[in-house]
Amino acid sequence: MPQLNDPAIVAELTALYLTYEKALVENDIATLDALFWDSPEVLRFGATENLYGMEAIRGFRQGRPTKNLVREISNLKVVTFDADTAIVTLEFQRLADGRLRSGRQSQVWRKLPEGWKIVSAHVSLLPE
Amino acid sequence: MPQLNDPAIVAELTALYLTYEKALVENDIATLDALFWDSPEVLRFGATENLYGMEAIRGFRQGRPTKNLVREISNLKVVTFDADTAIVTLEFQRLADGRLRSGRQSQVWRKLPEGWKIVSAHVSLLPE
Repeated sequence: MPQLNDPAIVAELTALYLTYEKALVENDIATLDALFWDSPEVLRFGATENLYGMEAIRGFRQGRPTKNLVREISNLKVVTFDADTAIVTLEFQRLADGRLRSGRQSQVWRKLPEGWKIVSAHVSLLPE
Repeated sequence: MPQLNDPAIVAELTALYLTYEKALVENDIATLDALFWDSPEVLRFGATENLYGMEAIRGFRQGRPTKNLVREISNLKVVTFDADTAIVTLEFQRLADGRLRSGRQSQVWRKLPEGWKIVSAHVSLLPE
């Protein structure tokens, strides 16, 4: 019987996601990288860039500005399917080019032999 | 043994996705709705709106402009995990407010008792 939103799995993924969020605003690149699937098939559509494969994602993180990563998140939502797949979404507000902008983030987490990993991510800003 | 990108499943999801793409540019709302998970947990971050639950998604589709939905897609990518989960991503170019804009689309498909459904989607335009 497929199981939607098993409370234990939702709690596990929520905690994992909060680890990611903390690493993001602190620019803790080692943790961010460790939470992504180390594969050429992983993908991250960022606010201004399309990154295919872990090498591209790592390269972007090494080169990105390390300031103004603070953001306020809302509507954090974790939907889980059985014990293998989770979708984590949220809305955020942050400063970009000196203006307060609203955005959205989606992540797909998959339980792989090496543990839960982000296998796909999409971050975008809404039009002003 | 988990199976990544099983060729038969990739082919099945690619065909399903192309059905969606055709319905999108033709504004075939019945097909679009049928391919989405009919659940309050489904989510669609559109280019300019955040839609939570199938009722919100249906309402948006009923009210959206039916012209200028044509777009050119590139980098269509289907990644599948076992026989239950797929991530479909692409880049696109389309006219928005009279200007040619570049965007990205991500969808998560899950095999549910009622068949493969889009359980989460995110569409965004890159900054000009």
